[in-house]
Amino acid sequence: MDSISNFIPTPESIPPARTARSLSLNFSGKQLAVNYHPLNPLLFLLKAARVYPDKVALVHPETPYPRSFTFLVWAQRVQNFAYGLVKRGIRAGDRVAVIAPNSPMIADACHGIIAARGVATFINIRLTTAEVEYIIEHSGCKLILVDREFAGLVKNCMVDTVVCDDSGHANDPYEAFLSDGRRYSRERGWGGLDVEVDENAPATLCYTSGTTGRPKGVLCTLRGTYLAAVANAFEGQMNKDSVYLWLLPMFHAAGWTYPWAATFAFSSQVTLRTVDYPAIWKHFTQSGVTHYCAAPTVQIGIVNDPQARALQRSITAIIAGAAPTASLLGKLEEKGFKAVHVYGLTETYGPFTKSYEQDSWRSLTLEGRSKIIARQGHNFANAEDIRVVQLDLQDGKLVDVPQDGKAVGEIVTRGNIVMQEYFHDPEATRKAFTGGYFHSGDLAVWHADGSVAVVDRSKDIIISGGENASSLAIEQELSSHPDVLEVSVVARQHLKWGERAMAFVKLHPERASRWADRPEEFAADLKAHAKSRLPGFACPEWVLIVNELPKTSTGKILKTELRKRAAKL
Amino acid sequence: MDSISNFIPTPESIPPARTARSLSLNFSGKQLAVNYHPLNPLLFLLKAARVYPDKVALVHPETPYPRSFTFLVWAQRVQNFAYGLVKRGIRAGDRVAVIAPNSPMIADACHGIIAARGVATFINIRLTTAEVEYIIEHSGCKLILVDREFAGLVKNCMVDTVVCDDSGHANDPYEAFLSDGRRYSRERGWGGLDVEVDENAPATLCYTSGTTGRPKGVLCTLRGTYLAAVANAFEGQMNKDSVYLWLLPMFHAAGWTYPWAATFAFSSQVTLRTVDYPAIWKHFTQSGVTHYCAAPTVQIGIVNDPQARALQRSITAIIAGAAPTASLLGKLEEKGFKAVHVYGLTETYGPFTKSYEQDSWRSLTLEGRSKIIARQGHNFANAEDIRVVQLDLQDGKLVDVPQDGKAVGEIVTRGNIVMQEYFHDPEATRKAFTGGYFHSGDLAVWHADGSVAVVDRSKDIIISGGENASSLAIEQELSSHPDVLEVSVVARQHLKWGERAMAFVKLHPERASRWADRPEEFAADLKAHAKSRLPGFACPEWVLIVNELPKTSTGKILKTELRKRAAKL
Repeated sequence: MDSISNFIPTPESIPPARTARSLSLNFSGKQLAVNYHPLNPLLFLLKAARVYPDKVALVHPETPYPRSFTFLVWAQRVQNFAYGLVKRGIRAGDRVAVIAPNSPMIADACHGIIAARGVATFINIRLTTAEVEYIIEHSGCKLILVDREFAGLVKNCMVDTVVCDDSGHANDPYEAFLSDGRRYSRERGWGGLDVEVDENAPATLCYTSGTTGRPKGVLCTLRGTYLAAVANAFEGQMNKDSVYLWLLPMFHAAGWTYPWAATFAFSSQVTLRTVDYPAIWKHFTQSGVTHYCAAPTVQIGIVNDPQARALQRSITAIIAGAAPTASLLGKLEEKGFKAVHVYGLTETYGPFTKSYEQDSWRSLTLEGRSKIIARQGHNFANAEDIRVVQLDLQDGKLVDVPQDGKAVGEIVTRGNIVMQEYFHDPEATRKAFTGGYFHSGDLAVWHADGSVAVVDRSKDIIISGGENASSLAIEQELSSHPDVLEVSVVARQHLKWGERAMAFVKLHPERASRWADRPEEFAADLKAHAKSRLPGFACPEWVLIVNELPKTSTGKILKTELRKRAAKL
Repeated sequence: MDSISNFIPTPESIPPARTARSLSLNFSGKQLAVNYHPLNPLLFLLKAARVYPDKVALVHPETPYPRSFTFLVWAQRVQNFAYGLVKRGIRAGDRVAVIAPNSPMIADACHGIIAARGVATFINIRLTTAEVEYIIEHSGCKLILVDREFAGLVKNCMVDTVVCDDSGHANDPYEAFLSDGRRYSRERGWGGLDVEVDENAPATLCYTSGTTGRPKGVLCTLRGTYLAAVANAFEGQMNKDSVYLWLLPMFHAAGWTYPWAATFAFSSQVTLRTVDYPAIWKHFTQSGVTHYCAAPTVQIGIVNDPQARALQRSITAIIAGAAPTASLLGKLEEKGFKAVHVYGLTETYGPFTKSYEQDSWRSLTLEGRSKIIARQGHNFANAEDIRVVQLDLQDGKLVDVPQDGKAVGEIVTRGNIVMQEYFHDPEATRKAFTGGYFHSGDLAVWHADGSVAVVDRSKDIIISGGENASSLAIEQELSSHPDVLEVSVVARQHLKWGERAMAFVKLHPERASRWADRPEEFAADLKAHAKSRLPGFACPEWVLIVNELPKTSTGKILKTELRKRAAKL
């Protein structure tokens, strides 16, 4: 029962053509050199359909309409999708908005929009109507594909829209859109699509979550997506026997390029509309899941779910969005997960560093090992150049901080997995690319072994009595308290010290009752815990127990919210 | 004892710098876009030295001078190598010849020549003096690096030469060459080297083995080498725990880009000067070997060696150069090898197809499975476009043969892993690139599942009574005879049929005595075996038992030699 093959693939009403030529792009007449092929991640799906046509590519196990597709059928649906776009007037470079939870429609869109030479514009389903309207307008989208549940977000948009019921039924407007494309695709096939020959053409447009200010559109290229996807497949050691479970929203930084990475590796993908821990555990144990990506907050939910148990075989848990704590790593290890910490941004196609496992870690205690795994580590495969630089330029040049694990600078990077630009925002692009490197906005130290460790977002640092306290470092220490499930630390104004740390704590469910009527005693206990582990200026001055921490859709804690709450107390 | 860590790394006399910046190329002042990095396989070694500085990178276990190097020390030696070249006047685009068996010098050269922007020109150690002289002159090499054992090959060449004793000792002229470079590198580091910014610049120049005519120089680029290496690392699922054993000569098609693939994957490499079966088995069982590449003839030697035994853990045996027979695959499987069949040419950076394992194979018999594994299969990761086309162009366009497993055409390909050109031979390049594809010269059929299967080199086909008989297909069937160790089939003139097949057979050592005095009886037995399995026109008319089959240095059987012998009989 422990296998992806439990899912019976949905057939196509018209059997797709399956010859090698019918599954190839048509570059003839494009005058390309014999020894040059533009890097384009669409090629992965075509190859998978040639090599493993009958293998399960995509599973959507959601009731009441569970579905799954083989690579051959999926490739056909993607081709139909592309012709559907062409028929609706989408031309090279046109933006196509996609607003959906993890589901077949958004998975199709990752490949289908590129096939039509459009730009896949993924929009976060948790934004407000006003924010979505801003993005639709700013991106100049010509077409919107929206999941029924989120159709209200675009009800006022005067843009051609296809609504998807996520049913897979013939009367689903999205299926009608595909069928419409199928009328074209049947005769013309892949060869009839106008193939992109410039590997630097745009592929995706993702708006940053924008905890402050207007969201910015991150434009990424075919070449970058191809190289990032290959790197993710390689670093994850994914292959045809892998099953990738979608917990990370696909709309977030284009799923860190995993839609293409999994396809490159011939892996199966499982889409879940929501993060539902019992369902996740069901798939861990029954669907042969081997890999997933999630922020620490989701990982915490996974290991603390009542369904959590020791795994029969290891699952690779890729952690990003924030550094994992020792407590989290310990629980993941205990259950048999292989935890891999990566770090990246929407502007870097997802991961551009990785905490590379070292033999020497084996002799460390869990806590010692956790401190090293919490580092962002070294540059990812295909991310060639990473530095930690002083915040002030000297003569227009970036100056490296010493590799002493102490001096704080900003992480910068350059290379193929840096975005093309902030869409229609040359000023923001120029600023982000100052000195010939992309500026991450994250403050870090550089260790003697060349690994980098983020100490904080530049805006999250706490300046207390002239000392810089890293909110991340404080959180790491507080989370080692046995009763703490999750904690976030922000600066709060202090008459004497200027700023001081305030901790918002979610208690472990089994321990919460213990402190129910005496939050002051818990605060004293946590402060004492902190005092033995942190310098005085970094110890929290205030501790507040909360039921939930405010978060973005991707599980990042909204520190702006917490700062506002701290200011009001 | 079963580990690469049995080898104690050789320290550098001057400890190398190990900061992240001291292990980076210097692109400042090169006016590169923030989001563009030229693909260059040299980056892999620098990254490995940053992430795993103290891990064993290279082991040369040969007595009397066994050596091993960590990634950090190896990278330093490569840097010294590059400065050694610069000091000897090597400039961008200059060819540097390397004539050596698998050993640290040629491994260094793969990275060091690229670091100095030279073109690594690998020369086969088994060529004659005249052939080597031709290549030195044709390539216009400015410097020769030659292993002492093969120094005689270049004794008449009036080109600056460094001889390597392969001792690692300070008085070894090659070590002196490195020390010379070290004087420069110490002050200047990687940042002092003039880095290549054009990813389409040449990286390697390998001369085809040239079974007929003058050898042709195959020029390959940095971009192609980078992409092919990443594909090999991915397809082989290599990682930091892998140990790659060098049996394939590194001078052959630049070792199919494995020098860079292994480095990209942080794998350790073990170099052996010769193919010595007892030594190979020692490393299989004691050095933690996980991967190797070899032609079927070497694989036959491995599985039939008296030391051969069941492996404690699986080793990936990558087979190329010719299709493996059922008999060979059976013996490999029986001993615990995972056999992977790939196919390629010097002109395609090594592999460009792979026989991708399918679940459905599990239900087949060994013989049935072998027939499918013997197919060249589907396009490799990063080899985007493969076709089987009619030999005659129609209106200047290539026309696909039907995918029926019967119609014979030529395998052609295009894309990033096709060579740049035949060096200084525009006419041969033009011919090889006819119709916008590179022509392999191999005849193949195209199966309904899109896989390709080579039936023969175009010159090896046997035309018997108007029928085309594939010498490879005949060899496959003859090799299933229990007494046949190795067999090669060529055309011989026949009065009635025009041509007819002649088989040259090497008997299995344990069975040879049985037929010692009665070769005619063996011939009759083999012909009867053939008759039950092959059409009449494909059955061998003549059978000759030989002690050894003539081979190229890479283990390919020299059919030209056999044809000459057949003609003389």
